[in-house]
Amino acid sequence: MDKRKVDVAIIGAGTAGLTAYNAARKHTDNLVLIEGSHYGTTCARVGCMPSKLLIAAAESAHDAENTGLFGIQVGDIVVNGEKVLERVRKERDKFVRSVLASVDAIPSAHKLLGCARFVAPHRLVVGEEIEIIADRIVIATGSNPNIPDMFQGLGERLLVNDSLFELPSLPESVAVFGTGVVGLELGQALSRLGVRVRMFGRSGSLGGIADKEIRDYAEQCFSEEFYLDTHSEVTDISSVDGGVSIGFVHRDKGAVTELFDYTLVATGRSPNLEKLALHNSGLALDDNGIPLTEPSTLQCGSSPVFLVGDANQQAPVLHEAAYEGRIAGDNAGQYPKVISSERQAPFSVVFSNPQIASVGVPVGRMSAVERENYVAGNCSFEDQGRSKVIGKNRGILKVYAERNSGLFVGAEMFGPAAEHIGHLLAWAVQQRLTVSTMLAMPFYHPVIEEGVRTALRELHEKLIKTDTEVNPCMECGPGS
Amino acid sequence: MDKRKVDVAIIGAGTAGLTAYNAARKHTDNLVLIEGSHYGTTCARVGCMPSKLLIAAAESAHDAENTGLFGIQVGDIVVNGEKVLERVRKERDKFVRSVLASVDAIPSAHKLLGCARFVAPHRLVVGEEIEIIADRIVIATGSNPNIPDMFQGLGERLLVNDSLFELPSLPESVAVFGTGVVGLELGQALSRLGVRVRMFGRSGSLGGIADKEIRDYAEQCFSEEFYLDTHSEVTDISSVDGGVSIGFVHRDKGAVTELFDYTLVATGRSPNLEKLALHNSGLALDDNGIPLTEPSTLQCGSSPVFLVGDANQQAPVLHEAAYEGRIAGDNAGQYPKVISSERQAPFSVVFSNPQIASVGVPVGRMSAVERENYVAGNCSFEDQGRSKVIGKNRGILKVYAERNSGLFVGAEMFGPAAEHIGHLLAWAVQQRLTVSTMLAMPFYHPVIEEGVRTALRELHEKLIKTDTEVNPCMECGPGS
Repeated sequence: MDKRKVDVAIIGAGTAGLTAYNAARKHTDNLVLIEGSHYGTTCARVGCMPSKLLIAAAESAHDAENTGLFGIQVGDIVVNGEKVLERVRKERDKFVRSVLASVDAIPSAHKLLGCARFVAPHRLVVGEEIEIIADRIVIATGSNPNIPDMFQGLGERLLVNDSLFELPSLPESVAVFGTGVVGLELGQALSRLGVRVRMFGRSGSLGGIADKEIRDYAEQCFSEEFYLDTHSEVTDISSVDGGVSIGFVHRDKGAVTELFDYTLVATGRSPNLEKLALHNSGLALDDNGIPLTEPSTLQCGSSPVFLVGDANQQAPVLHEAAYEGRIAGDNAGQYPKVISSERQAPFSVVFSNPQIASVGVPVGRMSAVERENYVAGNCSFEDQGRSKVIGKNRGILKVYAERNSGLFVGAEMFGPAAEHIGHLLAWAVQQRLTVSTMLAMPFYHPVIEEGVRTALRELHEKLIKTDTEVNPCMECGPGS
Repeated sequence: MDKRKVDVAIIGAGTAGLTAYNAARKHTDNLVLIEGSHYGTTCARVGCMPSKLLIAAAESAHDAENTGLFGIQVGDIVVNGEKVLERVRKERDKFVRSVLASVDAIPSAHKLLGCARFVAPHRLVVGEEIEIIADRIVIATGSNPNIPDMFQGLGERLLVNDSLFELPSLPESVAVFGTGVVGLELGQALSRLGVRVRMFGRSGSLGGIADKEIRDYAEQCFSEEFYLDTHSEVTDISSVDGGVSIGFVHRDKGAVTELFDYTLVATGRSPNLEKLALHNSGLALDDNGIPLTEPSTLQCGSSPVFLVGDANQQAPVLHEAAYEGRIAGDNAGQYPKVISSERQAPFSVVFSNPQIASVGVPVGRMSAVERENYVAGNCSFEDQGRSKVIGKNRGILKVYAERNSGLFVGAEMFGPAAEHIGHLLAWAVQQRLTVSTMLAMPFYHPVIEEGVRTALRELHEKLIKTDTEVNPCMECGPGS
């Protein structure tokens, strides 16, 4: 078996691996990027990009159905499922090609195709032909969808996010399992594209929403569009002629059996760590076999191994994977010097409609005792001016501050333009702004951001008891 | 004639006046709010709110026409002009009612209806019945549309933003004069609602855009939707049977005469100062008869008079009017103590489509010599990932920093979600962030905000020559 000594080996050429490679390469030219499957990232191939493309089509159809509010009459709306998926794939492939072009630009000597596994600390075998002796190692192997046993017999009737986009046309019906980010985004999009959707959850969670009031509100909204049960009782899942038969306890009708073209399983993702033979790595592993990793350095213990991106399951979203890759690549490149980096303000978005955004400290998930250190401000978007103007006046925003300092620490939102509001608030958290400072910022009129001001004002009133009674309509525009 | 002595008189009960009243009232109960016309603000009655309502209908119709991109076929689209305007008025009236409710809540003793004029410093006559002797005075009389002489004979065929929303239905054709904010917003909305629109400008300006490249790009975009000439030569405007006849030099066809149902005149607004008899006020006036006003206090010279909102023409947008009213009301309330307030970061939005946002220092308007102190970064939205996904990939963003400090000072954008990006950037300007600090903030994926990062990175590269060559596709998601 060939042997090759490198300063840095990076396992996985996804978003985190590519970013780690880029950072490590500034320190050494003796490095290798190992890809076990095919190039192109989860994000581009099966994740962010194709899902947003499907959602764009769904929004287009949905908005066309709702022009009546504005005095616009629209004739028959026909969703051409083949064309919808054709555009999704065509545009997705462009994004994939842009990633592949980046990979092509990496010198061949730095790339190695094959599955890597540890045979000892510092020692990886790739395929059966080459052993890599690496001074430092970055693990960036990503994740893949969980498929619980109950779905195993469904064959082609089983879809995950990877395979959904490969369908020749939109199905007539889909049973979606999982009410997390992926299930919610794809399930709602399918529903808005005319697919009969039933969505089944188990734990009660919904799009990762922490606050119970917001969660319940969101469940009500989604339930008006498609059947949704976040505490479902599914009694049978069977492959039958022409589809999948699902027996479940319907919220209204009791025990029923329904036939679906497909099941879409979106019950979470697991890190791709099994094939790495981590028991040979010398790393300390937790009960799930995952190496313990320090978030500020991405280092596993005091070892020269770094674990990044979806593979460490700390913050499985693209911008965090890229950020982690950069930190780890930099540290791997200059090891034994390891630098702690301040992590960015936590920020996640669900591209449902309305959207969900979570920023900073998840106060909504805290116990009553923990919450005593914080104060909350609210805004309903039902009566928010601009949201009403555009007919998107559904949703709730909650903003949180430290009780003693007035420091803005986080927010959760289900509502219009949440991806944009999320940026404004995530930047505010990262800069450690106080609520007063935020209220001194410009809010244009009439904008959805004025709802943020409403919530911040409530927060401010609670933080500082003043004798001023602010009449909102005098301080700002009508319907702000 | 009755006489009444007050601590503070506020002339005008619009946005700035109401805010000033609210602030002054914290200092004294002996004050009066004088309204010369009817209650309800420009914003609610004829400005922000009805225009955004009309635009919402226009966007709805436009989006329904463009579903084909996504694989969605839509039958005939019929714009029901009566229903469109019915909704505009119905929703607008709700906003007006919310303002009137605020006015109702003001004690009767604090309100006075009638036209105010100075008869001497500190002395106002309101109507012909009462003289107000005011220790301090806040002028908040707002503005009204300019109607150049050439339009004076058109009678009912002449529309301004006030009267447009009162039409029973949408006209077949409108000639729009003025390519500023109002002309552009309303003209494009009418065009997207199926009205035949010709838009005539004179000075070459377009939606207040400072940067020439962005301006030209925007002109190209708008010109694809409706006839637009920002350097128009109009030879004749005449009222004729069935409409208005307009002779003009067509950009392609040369001299032509076209018939329109209406002309919409949006050639700027003038402060409502004429009826105040300011020559009796003792205030120093500029060549246009406008009192000289200090922006940080809104005080006119060292007098106890304050001039706020559209009436001072400094920043005729709602949130600035409210902010000015608050500063002036507070200062009038506690005069002779006058406190300087730091003004908010300049920020304006045009709700065209794509939108226009201007933030901070208008570097785009500077001379070449002045611009040398600044560095610019650019992003085109034509190849920006999320913008492409949603089919809104048109536009340009320019961001500006001080060359020596790396301080972010401003931006101008024509593109998708500019109202939201504008908030993010206006807050950054107000906080005096450096470009480096902004680049350390979270940018989710895939979002339009990633275009901001692209522009900031270019700016950063110019500010600090580094040896790092960043391959964008490794640092972020595909198509960011």
